[in-house]
Amino acid sequence: MIFLDAAATTPVRREVLEAMWPYLSGEFGNPSSHHTLGEAAAAALAEARSGVAKVFNCRPGEVTFTSGGTEADNLAVKGIALARRAADPALNRVVISAVEHPAVEESARYLERIHDFLVDVVPVDTDGLVTVDALRSLLRPETALVSIMYANNEIGTVQPIAALADAAHAAGVPFHTDAVQAAGWCPLDVKDLGVDAMSISAHKLGAPKGSGALFAKGRLRLEPLMHGGGQERGKRSGTENVAGAVALSTALTLSHAEQPEQAPRVARLRERFIARILDTVPDARLTGHRGQRLPSVASFCFPGTSGESVLLELERLGVVCSSGSACAAGSDAPSPVLVALGIAPETAQTAVRFSFTSTISDADLDAAAVAVETAVGRVRNLAAPQAG
Amino acid sequence: MIFLDAAATTPVRREVLEAMWPYLSGEFGNPSSHHTLGEAAAAALAEARSGVAKVFNCRPGEVTFTSGGTEADNLAVKGIALARRAADPALNRVVISAVEHPAVEESARYLERIHDFLVDVVPVDTDGLVTVDALRSLLRPETALVSIMYANNEIGTVQPIAALADAAHAAGVPFHTDAVQAAGWCPLDVKDLGVDAMSISAHKLGAPKGSGALFAKGRLRLEPLMHGGGQERGKRSGTENVAGAVALSTALTLSHAEQPEQAPRVARLRERFIARILDTVPDARLTGHRGQRLPSVASFCFPGTSGESVLLELERLGVVCSSGSACAAGSDAPSPVLVALGIAPETAQTAVRFSFTSTISDADLDAAAVAVETAVGRVRNLAAPQAG
Repeated sequence: MIFLDAAATTPVRREVLEAMWPYLSGEFGNPSSHHTLGEAAAAALAEARSGVAKVFNCRPGEVTFTSGGTEADNLAVKGIALARRAADPALNRVVISAVEHPAVEESARYLERIHDFLVDVVPVDTDGLVTVDALRSLLRPETALVSIMYANNEIGTVQPIAALADAAHAAGVPFHTDAVQAAGWCPLDVKDLGVDAMSISAHKLGAPKGSGALFAKGRLRLEPLMHGGGQERGKRSGTENVAGAVALSTALTLSHAEQPEQAPRVARLRERFIARILDTVPDARLTGHRGQRLPSVASFCFPGTSGESVLLELERLGVVCSSGSACAAGSDAPSPVLVALGIAPETAQTAVRFSFTSTISDADLDAAAVAVETAVGRVRNLAAPQAG
Repeated sequence: MIFLDAAATTPVRREVLEAMWPYLSGEFGNPSSHHTLGEAAAAALAEARSGVAKVFNCRPGEVTFTSGGTEADNLAVKGIALARRAADPALNRVVISAVEHPAVEESARYLERIHDFLVDVVPVDTDGLVTVDALRSLLRPETALVSIMYANNEIGTVQPIAALADAAHAAGVPFHTDAVQAAGWCPLDVKDLGVDAMSISAHKLGAPKGSGALFAKGRLRLEPLMHGGGQERGKRSGTENVAGAVALSTALTLSHAEQPEQAPRVARLRERFIARILDTVPDARLTGHRGQRLPSVASFCFPGTSGESVLLELERLGVVCSSGSACAAGSDAPSPVLVALGIAPETAQTAVRFSFTSTISDADLDAAAVAVETAVGRVRNLAAPQAG
């Protein structure tokens, strides 16, 4: 099997399993307990937090562990907007982009539905990019928060986060970015990026599902999603998932260290793969920005097919990938992300996304490219009227 | 080390580690992915859900996996109250008991602070029991939800859940119970209990931290805590923690199977331990109900000491326990639970809780009882004016 669905989830790395293992076995303390067992757990948690903070170039106290990227996004979008409005009732709008992950989009819709916020949606261009001008035109004195994703999960387009954050700050608005897909591939220094909040997820980085983290800058106040025992400096109650935090920190640290070597290597492989698909598959259309995209994502539409049929053929040929976001897989509606790029709904339904782990090889991608050519050809032959 | 802090957290059971292991290694699929890897993960998740449903005697679709007990409590209290008020704006009150875990208490306070709900608090008697009459007197036409914990985490008192749920239903109000401490020790059949919602946590049952579950009955609507990809039938977005769900289901199933044998065995040990402490430690005072208590919890006040000093002495003597809830450990304020029983604050600060796993032995508890006698004696000697 050639696994090209790393944007959905990744295998757990051996080093990560080894690092988390003690906290699944002997070191089972509750970090809130005031005895040696609890203190060992608290120390592991603190070390995990420092590891994440080092990659983010922030203080450990600015890192909150969550149960995943979705929780981190929810905490950021709802938490910042609600806390800012509590301090100033005039702040009743949030800005998101047209290509956000549902975790951000639906958090904004929750604010609209339950808390009477207004949601302003910045459009994207045909490459999926948000421009600074487009963002600036939506900023108002009532804007409580801007949330724009770092890299898109379906098309891989990477946004100019530093410039967008600057524009938000010029209007006095804090800026959150969903970096779930960017993590491992793009720089995560929050000072360079100039972001006030940033979400990541463990299971996209070679750690298990059930863990994530939110950076939230210094004194930025957050209304928690989960109330209770006051863990995570009151920002996220609930007994901490020590093993999950250790796993996330280990995976993030490893991928950060490897990034200078792996990101350009995988980007080169992606370029070759894209060129080959565009060359060998008639009418194949790349989605997302040609250059400003994740090293790990190559996404296409194959007009005259259905994305789901191509996936089935590919799986028969030993290649595992997806039609887009796993979170929306199975939905019959065309991808809102692709529609936001101006792609016709019937074309959007022919989308296939190939996403790579950092261990992807030339040989695998060569074999995959052959399989794609075969699969698309077969699906088109089946769809075409049969000749006698 | 004799570990008597199982109400804070428990070691992960070998069978649980074995059951979850495949989902930390080879079977790393995202349950939302429509390929064999995803389908294997989805099947594991479905089986885990069925396992929990079997213990709860409910339908699998009524079980929502969460990141822990705190999230399950937050989802129940906020989710039910907000969804009910959305359907009927007159429903703007919630009832909780005076001895709830902060996950329930602070969720209710969030509803009060952010959503203008009113919180009615049912008092408890000196044993920590909520009476049906006390609950009934607080129920009103505007009551959206009653949430009363099954068994208390600090004193072990077990509430008459079925009778309390009946009283709520007679007033047309749904009933939630936080069964985080009860799970593993008390019956969890939701039909027998008559509850509409029930929370449990994995790490109190021999599974790792970071996983929990909420039972929510049939068509009971919930406003989610986390919005996004619509996982868990839209009740809880975010990629599912497959390994965590498998671990929880395995641990719950094991403890449920062992309960008929272990609960009475451990209750007998607890009785012997309590009798011995009351016999050998002058002025020791049991907190909580004498008989209606968890088999696994023996809790005391030792007037003339400080709980923290006794804990330190006990740890030197090889016994690990706690002063009460791990969630509030380190707080200088006397336990609100003990204060709600009518215990004077200065006495409440002398509290020590001993809580047992199901593998606790007679020999361990005998040794622990000797250590308690010694530790309390030493602390009192230090506190007393020294004789020349």
